[in-house]
Amino acid sequence: MKKKPTTISIVGAGLVGSLLSIYLARRGYQVSVYERRFDMRKNFLGGGRSINLALSNRGIRALEEVGLAAEMKKHSVPMKGRLMHDINGKLTFQPYGTSGQYINSISRSGLNMFLMDEAEKQGVNFFFEYRCIDVNLEKTELTFQNQHDIRHHQSDLIIGADGAFSAIRAALQVSDRFEYSQHYIEHGYKELRIPPGEKGEFMLEREALHIWPRESYMLIALPNPDATFTVTLFYPFEGENSFQKLTNDEEVMAFFKKTFPDVTAIMPSLLEDFRDNPTSSLVTIRCAPWVKNSTLLIGDAAHGIVPFYGQGMNAGFEDCAVLNQLLDKYQDDWSKVAPEFEKLRKADADAIAQLALDNFVEMRDLVADPEFLLRKKIEARIHELFPKQWIPLYSMVTFHDEIRYSDAQEMGKRQKAIMDKVMATPDIEKNWEKLNFGEIASSLKPLQ
Amino acid sequence: MKKKPTTISIVGAGLVGSLLSIYLARRGYQVSVYERRFDMRKNFLGGGRSINLALSNRGIRALEEVGLAAEMKKHSVPMKGRLMHDINGKLTFQPYGTSGQYINSISRSGLNMFLMDEAEKQGVNFFFEYRCIDVNLEKTELTFQNQHDIRHHQSDLIIGADGAFSAIRAALQVSDRFEYSQHYIEHGYKELRIPPGEKGEFMLEREALHIWPRESYMLIALPNPDATFTVTLFYPFEGENSFQKLTNDEEVMAFFKKTFPDVTAIMPSLLEDFRDNPTSSLVTIRCAPWVKNSTLLIGDAAHGIVPFYGQGMNAGFEDCAVLNQLLDKYQDDWSKVAPEFEKLRKADADAIAQLALDNFVEMRDLVADPEFLLRKKIEARIHELFPKQWIPLYSMVTFHDEIRYSDAQEMGKRQKAIMDKVMATPDIEKNWEKLNFGEIASSLKPLQ
Repeated sequence: MKKKPTTISIVGAGLVGSLLSIYLARRGYQVSVYERRFDMRKNFLGGGRSINLALSNRGIRALEEVGLAAEMKKHSVPMKGRLMHDINGKLTFQPYGTSGQYINSISRSGLNMFLMDEAEKQGVNFFFEYRCIDVNLEKTELTFQNQHDIRHHQSDLIIGADGAFSAIRAALQVSDRFEYSQHYIEHGYKELRIPPGEKGEFMLEREALHIWPRESYMLIALPNPDATFTVTLFYPFEGENSFQKLTNDEEVMAFFKKTFPDVTAIMPSLLEDFRDNPTSSLVTIRCAPWVKNSTLLIGDAAHGIVPFYGQGMNAGFEDCAVLNQLLDKYQDDWSKVAPEFEKLRKADADAIAQLALDNFVEMRDLVADPEFLLRKKIEARIHELFPKQWIPLYSMVTFHDEIRYSDAQEMGKRQKAIMDKVMATPDIEKNWEKLNFGEIASSLKPLQ
Repeated sequence: MKKKPTTISIVGAGLVGSLLSIYLARRGYQVSVYERRFDMRKNFLGGGRSINLALSNRGIRALEEVGLAAEMKKHSVPMKGRLMHDINGKLTFQPYGTSGQYINSISRSGLNMFLMDEAEKQGVNFFFEYRCIDVNLEKTELTFQNQHDIRHHQSDLIIGADGAFSAIRAALQVSDRFEYSQHYIEHGYKELRIPPGEKGEFMLEREALHIWPRESYMLIALPNPDATFTVTLFYPFEGENSFQKLTNDEEVMAFFKKTFPDVTAIMPSLLEDFRDNPTSSLVTIRCAPWVKNSTLLIGDAAHGIVPFYGQGMNAGFEDCAVLNQLLDKYQDDWSKVAPEFEKLRKADADAIAQLALDNFVEMRDLVADPEFLLRKKIEARIHELFPKQWIPLYSMVTFHDEIRYSDAQEMGKRQKAIMDKVMATPDIEKNWEKLNFGEIASSLKPLQ
């Protein structure tokens, strides 16, 4: 790693690449961003990755540090908790935070276009339709294919922010002793849509993340500022209940009517959306090292995760903020920054990757279980009484950006062990308010 | 997968690709083999992968089925057991089999050249210095770069036998929902050499695999027909005791004299070999699926394993034999053969991958432990008394090709649980001959 780079090439103009370019341009680097796709600001077609995202504290903080959080929050819809829909349309609400905290439904493309505009204001140069076809790690040189020809770009530092299927990581993967795994879950996802009502109103409760938990699979819906909802079905690719078995309109309609009757009634374009939208897969990417010579991985390129904790973008944005803090700490000496960045963030990336896999089980199955909801209620009470001693895992991950993912994961394990015992109390559903909450809270050992 | 292919392209003219081409040519297919390197028969330079290998029953059986086992056994040296060298040069022998069974030290390049010659006799066409740069899975088409130009070859079936860093697998890896991991152990290896004595004699006991177990690392030596030994140091890349710390001749010599005094005295070219030979890494590759459209992976391309069970080549050869059995079973209907091949062999590949990792601990550490040697002695006695009921794990893997790797692994786990209890008997070292061997043997439940 070169100590003091002047020119930095970022590969990937997605959310993380764009935000990172702002951070680095503000520090005085000459930043070029190369993007495989066309400029979505000129000819927006939609499609590609998921339509909206849940922006939460880690992401907000990273936006705040470059003065962009307030503007983005304007374009988002707050979601204050999970609203579960059972098969009969009965609703159960579970708040996310104990003190009115919420996460923010935001448009992926809107946020991305905004960040690119801001980056250009900071002097970042964007090159679109530049497909990276080779990386020379020795020379810190990228080879791109664009519409017309093949071009080589040499710089002092390459940062791969090119997502879960990173071309930069592919170059690292064939270098010696590179640890790598890609693991797909058995579920895929398909995006659908609930339009506004006749008077432009939201057709479901606006400020919530809706879940139709069905044990081995689920449907969710996130609100958009235009009064639509983005609906996503997470469903196995193969097997008894699977996308494979939904081969025509009749089968799709029968499945939805039987399984999600309340929402089916308000999805007039269900069959069309189901036919037209792709069934996408869900991958977890783990790798090491993230640094080789003067090339560095960041965001999904370094740690692709499943979406069930709503933390993919937030983790990538936090990468940018942590990198920036380390640049402050070491006066932009990248030979110190890069290895420490990897050391810190690899542990946190591994933690959130696992938490995200675990949370799928919680969302699709446990949230429909009264015992689980009682467990959450008891934890909320402990937190209310002892707000510093006991912070529920979801809150640590989502609302407490001062707590590292890896620490949150460890504390979550300790809490689970304690709560397993608490839940074994006879007649807990009747007697839970009589629990000795002080004793429970103090049985949780803090880290170190 | 096309039901009845006529033309088959095998990528990789290594051991597995060459043997497979013989099997398939004998069945009447038109087989072409494409190899990235030059023809080693024309200009043998040595180097590359390890110099010798341990051929055992699974590999021998696969050679036998095409009539080539007898010829190869002529060029090998039998190794009847492990001969451990402690730090004072004291020797301990542990036989491999209870009834004089042995494994065979054989030259990798000698075997490979022999198989290529045999394949050509069967009408196989070899293309050397053909580097595969692209695979079109839809069209079953390969793109090669050779010395002069770029060529496309279309066939009915592609088989990737191109090793742990397979180009064919790289094409599968970027297809959707491909499970993949590459994991390196912290040790690397370096090959060294013991020359014959003045009268052309072997300088160590000939018919043994020599081990210098040193807990966290080890040296091994395998005999060659020309009275040399190939010596391999398995040692961490980094850390307190590591290759990184051996930076000059003095440090290398001091390390060897202190750690392996007996063998250092008979390695006159130690320093030269240490300097000239690369330090190579050791990887485990796991992936799935092995079949996509009309492209299939086999051997190390499908399941790269570490060398500590001496089963890499044997597993690859067994792949060929199993594939051939399935072609018999299904009258060459590849649409049935390919998925069943993967189903059978994936379970066995996963088993031998784990067994090979476990065996490193056994070789470098446990074989120096008197309690472990006693455990092996007791197991050998049980096997002697109840030869069908209790076959030691090493024997199942190495000598019993009728037992699948996955079954051997499962039986090995059951044996270990029983032996852990046996070894907890008070004063076992004095009283072991009084054990109720019949009871021990019958406590081992057979599979299914």
